[in-house]
Amino acid sequence: MATIGDIGMSALINILGAFAFLLAFALMRIQPLNDRVYFTKWYIEGQRSSPSRRGDGLVGRFVNLNYKTYLTFLNWMPQALQMKEPQIIEHAGLDSAVFLRIYRLGLRIFGPIAIAAIILIPVNASGGNLFFLQHDLVINNIDKLSISNIHPKSNKFFVHIGLEYLFTFWACYMLYKEYDKVSSMRLSFLASCGRHPAQFTVLVRNVPRDPSLSISETVDNFFQRNHPDHYLRHQGVYKAKMFAKLVKKRIKLQNRLDYSQLKFERNPQKRPTRKKGFLGLWGERVDSIDYFKQQIKDLDEQLTMEREKVMKDPKSVTRAAFVSFKTRWGAAVCAQTQQSKNPTLWLTYWAPEPRDIYWKNLGIPFVSLSIRKLIISLAMFGLVFFYFIPVAFVQSLANIEGLAKAVPFLRPILDRKLVKSFLQGFVPGLALKIFLLILPSILMVMSKIEGHIALSVLEQKTAAKYYYFMLVNVFLGSIATGTAFQQLNAFLHQSATEIPRNIGVSIPMKASFFITYIMIDGWAGIAGEILRLKPLVFFHLKRMFMVKTERDLEKAMRPKGIDFPETLPSLQLYFLLGIVYMAVTPILLPFILVFFTFAYLVYRHQVINVYNQKYESAAAFWPHVHNRIVASLVVSQLLLMGLLSTKKATNSTPLLVVLPILTLTFHKYCKHRFEPAFRNDPLEESMSKDLEDGAAELDGGFKSHLMDAYLHPIFHSIEGVEMAEVRVDKD
Amino acid sequence: MATIGDIGMSALINILGAFAFLLAFALMRIQPLNDRVYFTKWYIEGQRSSPSRRGDGLVGRFVNLNYKTYLTFLNWMPQALQMKEPQIIEHAGLDSAVFLRIYRLGLRIFGPIAIAAIILIPVNASGGNLFFLQHDLVINNIDKLSISNIHPKSNKFFVHIGLEYLFTFWACYMLYKEYDKVSSMRLSFLASCGRHPAQFTVLVRNVPRDPSLSISETVDNFFQRNHPDHYLRHQGVYKAKMFAKLVKKRIKLQNRLDYSQLKFERNPQKRPTRKKGFLGLWGERVDSIDYFKQQIKDLDEQLTMEREKVMKDPKSVTRAAFVSFKTRWGAAVCAQTQQSKNPTLWLTYWAPEPRDIYWKNLGIPFVSLSIRKLIISLAMFGLVFFYFIPVAFVQSLANIEGLAKAVPFLRPILDRKLVKSFLQGFVPGLALKIFLLILPSILMVMSKIEGHIALSVLEQKTAAKYYYFMLVNVFLGSIATGTAFQQLNAFLHQSATEIPRNIGVSIPMKASFFITYIMIDGWAGIAGEILRLKPLVFFHLKRMFMVKTERDLEKAMRPKGIDFPETLPSLQLYFLLGIVYMAVTPILLPFILVFFTFAYLVYRHQVINVYNQKYESAAAFWPHVHNRIVASLVVSQLLLMGLLSTKKATNSTPLLVVLPILTLTFHKYCKHRFEPAFRNDPLEESMSKDLEDGAAELDGGFKSHLMDAYLHPIFHSIEGVEMAEVRVDKD
Repeated sequence: MATIGDIGMSALINILGAFAFLLAFALMRIQPLNDRVYFTKWYIEGQRSSPSRRGDGLVGRFVNLNYKTYLTFLNWMPQALQMKEPQIIEHAGLDSAVFLRIYRLGLRIFGPIAIAAIILIPVNASGGNLFFLQHDLVINNIDKLSISNIHPKSNKFFVHIGLEYLFTFWACYMLYKEYDKVSSMRLSFLASCGRHPAQFTVLVRNVPRDPSLSISETVDNFFQRNHPDHYLRHQGVYKAKMFAKLVKKRIKLQNRLDYSQLKFERNPQKRPTRKKGFLGLWGERVDSIDYFKQQIKDLDEQLTMEREKVMKDPKSVTRAAFVSFKTRWGAAVCAQTQQSKNPTLWLTYWAPEPRDIYWKNLGIPFVSLSIRKLIISLAMFGLVFFYFIPVAFVQSLANIEGLAKAVPFLRPILDRKLVKSFLQGFVPGLALKIFLLILPSILMVMSKIEGHIALSVLEQKTAAKYYYFMLVNVFLGSIATGTAFQQLNAFLHQSATEIPRNIGVSIPMKASFFITYIMIDGWAGIAGEILRLKPLVFFHLKRMFMVKTERDLEKAMRPKGIDFPETLPSLQLYFLLGIVYMAVTPILLPFILVFFTFAYLVYRHQVINVYNQKYESAAAFWPHVHNRIVASLVVSQLLLMGLLSTKKATNSTPLLVVLPILTLTFHKYCKHRFEPAFRNDPLEESMSKDLEDGAAELDGGFKSHLMDAYLHPIFHSIEGVEMAEVRVDKD
Repeated sequence: MATIGDIGMSALINILGAFAFLLAFALMRIQPLNDRVYFTKWYIEGQRSSPSRRGDGLVGRFVNLNYKTYLTFLNWMPQALQMKEPQIIEHAGLDSAVFLRIYRLGLRIFGPIAIAAIILIPVNASGGNLFFLQHDLVINNIDKLSISNIHPKSNKFFVHIGLEYLFTFWACYMLYKEYDKVSSMRLSFLASCGRHPAQFTVLVRNVPRDPSLSISETVDNFFQRNHPDHYLRHQGVYKAKMFAKLVKKRIKLQNRLDYSQLKFERNPQKRPTRKKGFLGLWGERVDSIDYFKQQIKDLDEQLTMEREKVMKDPKSVTRAAFVSFKTRWGAAVCAQTQQSKNPTLWLTYWAPEPRDIYWKNLGIPFVSLSIRKLIISLAMFGLVFFYFIPVAFVQSLANIEGLAKAVPFLRPILDRKLVKSFLQGFVPGLALKIFLLILPSILMVMSKIEGHIALSVLEQKTAAKYYYFMLVNVFLGSIATGTAFQQLNAFLHQSATEIPRNIGVSIPMKASFFITYIMIDGWAGIAGEILRLKPLVFFHLKRMFMVKTERDLEKAMRPKGIDFPETLPSLQLYFLLGIVYMAVTPILLPFILVFFTFAYLVYRHQVINVYNQKYESAAAFWPHVHNRIVASLVVSQLLLMGLLSTKKATNSTPLLVVLPILTLTFHKYCKHRFEPAFRNDPLEESMSKDLEDGAAELDGGFKSHLMDAYLHPIFHSIEGVEMAEVRVDKD
C-alpha cells in the first residue's frame, strides 16, 4: 500500500506528465500547420478558411516564427473561459453547454463538501485505532486520515453520519437546482430554435400491412381519418442498400473528377489522362476529365433506374413513416397519444431531428424489438461478468508450451528469445488493452441491435452500458478481490446485509488506489484529450498521402463531437468515487476537484475550438446523469451503513436507514417534476408557438422543406438529382 | 401432521358444513320474507317490487307454504348457469362478468394441469425416500405423494422440471388468451355503451392559482387557448362540508315527513302530532306534518344561503375541475397529453364515471400526494411486518396477573373464575379476529389517505395491500416459522440463493396445512357467502325496528357489490397455492378445483340475484390479476429451484434459471400488448365513435346532461332545488 510519500510522488509524476502534454499542446496549437486540427470548429463554421499567418515567407506558412506567442503559451485557458454560456449554446449547441455544466456541477457539489470535510481530519487522525494495529498490518498515512482510524463503538461515528446527512442534502440541493436550470434551458432552447421540421413531424412505426393498399396509402387513410384537421402529409422510409452503394460510388467518382479538373486548372497545358483498367494500372489511356464525366453520366442513369425500382417495389418500403402535421399542436398530440386499439400498431414518437436519425432501425417490427432487448440484456450481463473469458483465452495463447504443443512446427520460431519474451511479456497486456479499446464499439453495436432509432439514444444507451461495465469491473472490481464473476457468485451467497458490509469494510483501504487512478486516468487522460495526438497524427498522414481536393481536406479534419459514450460514464464514475469517499476518506476530494477544474477548462476549449456535434438532442442525456448521481448517493449511504456495522456502531443503523428513503423520495419527486420536460412536448408550448407563427397558413416553401427534411439521406446525397422527383408525397 | 385419514375427515366435516349452509340457503331463499335479501338486484333493477306469492293467506306472505319448491331446493345452481355472458354484462356490468371469468380461468388453468399431474403420483410414490426416514420423522401419506419422497440426486427430478415447464407454458397460454379476450371485451363494452359523459370529460388537477383570476376563469382561459377547437365548458369541484351536513339533515327531515304523511293516510281520522323538544320527548305538542314542512322550508333557505356562500367563497373552490369537450377525440387528446411546461401543473386524467368518483381527494395538491404515498408505503411496511405488536399488546391484557397489578382495585372481579377463563381463553383469539375483521377497513382508509380519486382505484389499491398482507402473513407465515418480522430479519441475513432454498424446502411439508386451509377458508367461506347471514340478520333487525318508509326499506337491503378488496386477494392466494404446489404436491389441486367450481357457481348466483355494483370500471382490475398470477409463476419457479438445490439436483439449476427469464419476458410482452387498453383510450376508437354520432353538433340536452353529471353530488341530493341555479359554467 502506498504511503503519503508514494502518492505525492505519483502526483508529481502525473502533474509533470500532464504539464508536458499541456506544453506540447501550447506549442503545437500555434503552428499554422496544425491549425485545422486545433481549430476544427472554426473551419466548419466557415469563420476560418486558412491559418492566420504568424510570420512571413514559406516557412511561416507551416511553422510559427513569432516568438512573442511562445511566451503566452498558456493563454488558451483564459480564452476558453471568455465565452459566455449563451454564446456557447449558439456556437456549439445545448448538448455541449450542458455537458460543460456537469463539470461545473461537480465543482459546486464537491467544493463546499471538501471544505466542510476538513473537520473530519482531526476527528479521524485523533482516532488512533490503527496505531495499535500498526505492528500487524502495513498501514499508510492516508488510512490514518480515514474512518478506519477510529475505534469501534466510538461516538465519533456520529460526526460521519451527520456529515453524510449534510453532504447528501447539499448534493440533492445542487442537483435539484441544476435539474431545474437544465430543464428550463432545454425548454427555452427548444422554444427559441424557430420553425423546424422536427416540431411538425412524428415518426410512426409498425404500420399494419393491408394487402389491398400500399403502406403509403394506409398511412394516408389512417391519419386523414383520425387527425383530419391537422394531418399534412407523410414521407415513407425505404430499404435501399443497392442505391446507397451506387451513391457512394458516384461520390468517389465526383471527387476524382474534381481532382482531375483541379490538376488541369493548375497546369492548363496538359490535360490529365489515366488508364481505363483496374485501379488505372493498365488498359487504354484516356482523358481523365472526359472519362470521369462519362462514368458519372452512366451512373446517374443507373441511379435513376434504381430509384424507380426502390419506389415501386413494395418490399423496399418499410412499415415506418414520417408524418407531418400542419401545426405543432397536432404533432404534439399525435406523438403523445395512443392511436390504435392494438397498442403494438401505429406507435408514434417525436421524430428525432433529421441529422439524429439512425435510418437502419426504423423498420424493425414490435415483436422483434422485445426479443432484441431480451437478447441484448442477456449478452450485456454476459459481457460484464464474463468478459475476461475471451481475454484470458487470448492471453493463454501466450503460454509458449501450450502453443508449441498445439502447433509443433512453430517450435523453432517460438524458441527464439525475442519471440518468447514478446509473447510472454507483451501479448497478455495487449489483449486486455485491445479489448478495452474496442469495448465502446462493441457496446455501440449492441445498442444498434437493440433497435433504437436516434443516434442520441444510441449514444445514451452505449454510455449506460459502459457505465455498468465500469461500475462492476472498475469500482467493485477494485474494491473486492477476484473477477466480476467470482464476486457475483459471492454476492449470491451473501445476505442482503452482508454485501454492503463486505464491500464497505474495504472501501477506506482502497482510497490510495483510487487516488492514483484519478491521477492516471483523469488528469493524464484529460491532458491527452487536449493534445489530440491521434487526430493530429492522422491529419498529417492523410494530408501527406491522400488529400487531393478541398473536400478531402475537410474530411481529413475528422470533425468529431463530444464522445458521450466514453466521457459520460467516466465522469459519472468520478462522481461515484467522490460521493462514496466524501464521508470516509475526504482526502480523495481535492484530487477529484483538480480533475473537474482541469477537465472543465479543457472541454470548454475543445467545445469552442474543436468539436462539431453531429446532432442536437437538447440535453436529452441529462436525466441519466442526474439519476446516476442520485444512485451514487444511495450506494454511498448503503456502504457507509455496512462499514459502520463492522465498526460495531449498529445503534447508528436506524439513523442511516432513513437517508436512502429520503434520497429515493427526492429522486421520485425530481422524476415527476422534471423528467416529462425531456420526454414530452407540452401542448401549452406548442400552441403558443403556433400562435406566434400567426394565423397564416404554412407557406409552400416551408411545406416542401418539411418533406425534404425527412427524405431518406441517400436521396439527398446526389447533387445533380432534382429533389422534386424523389419526394413521395401524394399532393 | 395430518395423515390422509385426517384430511379425509376434515374434508368430510367441511363438505358437510358447506352442505348445511347450502341447505339453509336453499330453505331461506324461497321464503317471501327474505326475498329482498336474496334477490336484491331484481328489486333495484325494478323488475320485482314485492315477493311473488308462493301461498295464500297472511302466513303465505311471510312463509313459503308450497311444498313442491322445497323438493327442488338445489335448482339455483342450474339457474345460475343459465344466463349467458352477454346477458350478465348487460344485467350486472362488465366488472362482474370479468370477475366471474377469473374463476373460470382458474378451472381452465388447473383442470388440465391436475390431469397431467397424475403422472407425478407414481413418480413420487415410487421414490421411497421417506420410507427410510420414517423412523425418525412423523411422515404422513400426503408427503409420500410429494416431491419429498424422492431420493436426492435422482433423475426423477427431471420429470418435475419438465412438468414445471409444461405447466408454465400452459398457464401462460391461458393467461394470454384470457388477457386478449378481456381487453377486447373491455374495448367493445366501452364502444357499445353509447354516449356517456365520461367519454367527453377530463379531470384536471393542480390548476395553478392566479391571484388576479378565479380558478374557474383560469381553467376557462387555459383550455380556450390550448384546446380552442374542442373545449366545451367545465365544472368546478367544491369543498362543502357544512352544505353536506345540511343536506343530510334535510334528507332525515324529509323521511320523517314522509312517515308522518303515510301515518296520516293510513289513519285519516287522526293527524299525527309530536313534541317540539329534544327527540320529541318534551315541549309543546304540534302537528307533525306542519312541523316538518316548516322545518324543511327553513332548512331550504339555509341551504340556499350556504350554497351561495360556497359558490362565492374562493376558499371553497378546490384546484381541480372537470373539463368537458365537444368531441371524444378532444377529450382523449387532453387526457393523454402533457398540458403545461411545469409537469406538476394542469395534470389531466380521464374522468372516472360520476358514480365512481371519490370527491374528497380531488383537491389534493401534487406535492402532498408524493408525501402521502411515502408515508403510506412506510405505514404499510410497518403494518405487514409489525401488525402483531398491537395485537400482542391487547392479548397481554388478558394476562390476569399483569392486569391485576396495574389496576389493583379490579382484583376481586378478576379473581372470579368466569371472568378469568373469559379473559384467558377468549380475549387473545378475539383480539386477533377483530384485527383481521377491521383490517380491510384500515387498508381502505390508508388507500384513501394516499389520495386516489376513484372508488375503483381505491378498491384496487386496498386489494393490493390486502394481498401483500396475506402473502407475507398467510403464505410465508405458514411456511416459515416465527412472526413476519422475524422472517424479515432472517431474510436480511440470508443470501439471495439461501432464501428460496429455505422456503422451498418446507413447501412440500406444508401441503396438508394448506389443504385444510382451502377447505376451511375456501369451501366454507363460499358457502357462507351465499347464505348472506350478516345482511339477512341486519335486514330483519332493521325491518323490525327502523323501517318506516319505502325508502328505508330500500336502504335496509344494503345493496352491496362484489367486495373486491377481500375477494380478489384471497382468489389470488389460491392461484399462488395452486401454482406453487402444481409440480411439488399435485394432490392439492383437486381441492383448489373444487373451490373454483363452487365459488364460480356461488358468485354467478350472487352476481345475477344479489350484488349491485356501485360503479363500473370496465374490468380495470384485470391487469393486476394477470400480473399477480404471473408473479406466482415466478415465485413457484424460484421455490422449485431452491427445493431442488436442497435435493442435490444442482445440475438442474441452469434448466430452471431459463424459466423465470422466459416468464418475465412473457409478462413484459403482455404489458406492452394489452395494458394500454386499460390505461388510454385510443384515438382511432374515439374518432370512429365521434363519426358515428354524425357531423351533428352535440344537442343542448346532452350538453346540460354532460354538465350535471359531474356536479358535486351534494348539489344533486336535494330534490326541491333547481339544478340550473347550481351549475357553474360560464355560458
